[in-house]
Amino acid sequence: MPLVVVGSVALDSVETPTEKRENVLGGSATFFSYAASYFTPVRLVSVVGDDWPEQYTELLRQRQIDTSGLQVVPGGKTFRWRGKYLDNMNDRETLDVQLNVIDNFDPVLPEDYRRCKFLFLANGSAVLQMKVLRQCPGAQLTVADTMDLYIHNELDALRELLGQIDGLVLNDSEAKLLTGDDNLVRAGEAIRQMGPRFVVVKKGEHGAMFFGEHEMYVLPAYPTANVVDPTGAGDSFAGGMMGYLAEQGRFDPQTLKRAMAYGTLAASFTVEDFSLDRLRKIQREDLDQRMEQYERMLSF
Amino acid sequence: MPLVVVGSVALDSVETPTEKRENVLGGSATFFSYAASYFTPVRLVSVVGDDWPEQYTELLRQRQIDTSGLQVVPGGKTFRWRGKYLDNMNDRETLDVQLNVIDNFDPVLPEDYRRCKFLFLANGSAVLQMKVLRQCPGAQLTVADTMDLYIHNELDALRELLGQIDGLVLNDSEAKLLTGDDNLVRAGEAIRQMGPRFVVVKKGEHGAMFFGEHEMYVLPAYPTANVVDPTGAGDSFAGGMMGYLAEQGRFDPQTLKRAMAYGTLAASFTVEDFSLDRLRKIQREDLDQRMEQYERMLSF
Repeated sequence: MPLVVVGSVALDSVETPTEKRENVLGGSATFFSYAASYFTPVRLVSVVGDDWPEQYTELLRQRQIDTSGLQVVPGGKTFRWRGKYLDNMNDRETLDVQLNVIDNFDPVLPEDYRRCKFLFLANGSAVLQMKVLRQCPGAQLTVADTMDLYIHNELDALRELLGQIDGLVLNDSEAKLLTGDDNLVRAGEAIRQMGPRFVVVKKGEHGAMFFGEHEMYVLPAYPTANVVDPTGAGDSFAGGMMGYLAEQGRFDPQTLKRAMAYGTLAASFTVEDFSLDRLRKIQREDLDQRMEQYERMLSF
Repeated sequence: MPLVVVGSVALDSVETPTEKRENVLGGSATFFSYAASYFTPVRLVSVVGDDWPEQYTELLRQRQIDTSGLQVVPGGKTFRWRGKYLDNMNDRETLDVQLNVIDNFDPVLPEDYRRCKFLFLANGSAVLQMKVLRQCPGAQLTVADTMDLYIHNELDALRELLGQIDGLVLNDSEAKLLTGDDNLVRAGEAIRQMGPRFVVVKKGEHGAMFFGEHEMYVLPAYPTANVVDPTGAGDSFAGGMMGYLAEQGRFDPQTLKRAMAYGTLAASFTVEDFSLDRLRKIQREDLDQRMEQYERMLSF
């Protein structure tokens, strides 16, 4: 089944302890779409300026990602993010953010997008996420991501959103911030009590936790010695997860757990190079092969 | 098969964000022995002063732990540790350490202990660990724990030890310190290259990683909402792991992985109360029941 994602597309400048990249393809909706495209047709809604390199759109189209919802604002500049990873490759510093066209982004979904059954609201303003949600009253599975900025500045809108979505995906630090509880098992459950039917807490190199009505579990990250650039790992996780759910066309507990595992594996490829450089070199078979290894790793 | 452990027995004073305990039963060999006793007969080698409460020895004996190797130094004082956990319940501050009788501890193993096939050298001086190792030339499986203090102060002895033991168990921060590498997948493998046949890196609430000649894997911690006092979790992990290996009388890859899982579960009980207060309330069936839940959690 097709999957709609609304979120940011960006030009990232990334510095790691050993390397640097300028203006590479980034953004939450970009990583999400690309990871999800290994499972299901993806329809992308975002906005860029006319400084946007056409070959980046081409890259997305090559994976059959529908970019008809990607607005180009004449005279506008694309959202830019500049960040630096510390030696441990987990902590990062944001050096510069230029919202540019994202600041006035008011997504209006094409008619056929609105009939999609699977919707993902990538990291962004909760007010804007609510606006999108209202455009898709028939969606069967709506999942959102959020971040510290909106927990601080748009808590009311975020609380309203939580009452209307099926799932929320967020980082461990954000889960602690939203609940004031440092124990992630309690924090995840507390967020589920705020409305969504399930909550996924992403722990970076330590994996992800799932909180549903009848079960709670944690899956470890796929261990990799080769972490080049963690940017987009969380969005790739969400993309792999939602992509698999949309492919299966269902979201029962068993399918959700397998989706969490596919999300984990999509993220494990993303971190192995800058931008989409590693992810674009894989095939669906690579994900399935790593899945076999992952399942073997967790059997005893 | 019987299992010998050499390490510290202590009186702990622990402060958490909400509670305090004074002079409770602690020490690496204590937690290790108690956790291991659910699987196999344990023979404890340690030292205390004559301030040692007899009822603590009684507590160990009730689990059939052989305390004939527990020396009592007349006029001596027992090792004491005082620590405080920060709000996140993972980071802790050591407020006071009084080595007392541990400072001059020179373990001489009883003759029947020396014939044991399974030996664990709990957290302690690498020089002392080497001394013990030489007393058990016939051991089939020798595993040691270490800590930052000995990585800093006894690196030569530790390197010699690494060349002669079968397995090393250590914390994530210690693995990074010993190798200078922040990537745990690389760090664990680098330590294995230093000599031991396998290395286990403990990540606290995030589980544990295993590095062997032919495989590398990570298992998550058993998630618990009820973390009261993490003291002794790592030692309980090692106790559950070694206890299961000694019970099975073998340490092939499959048995090692199941042992890692039992270690994880032993630790998950320990953190649910102060000292041994939770662990002493369980039966072997509780471990097996949690194992069923843990296996279900990791199946998809």
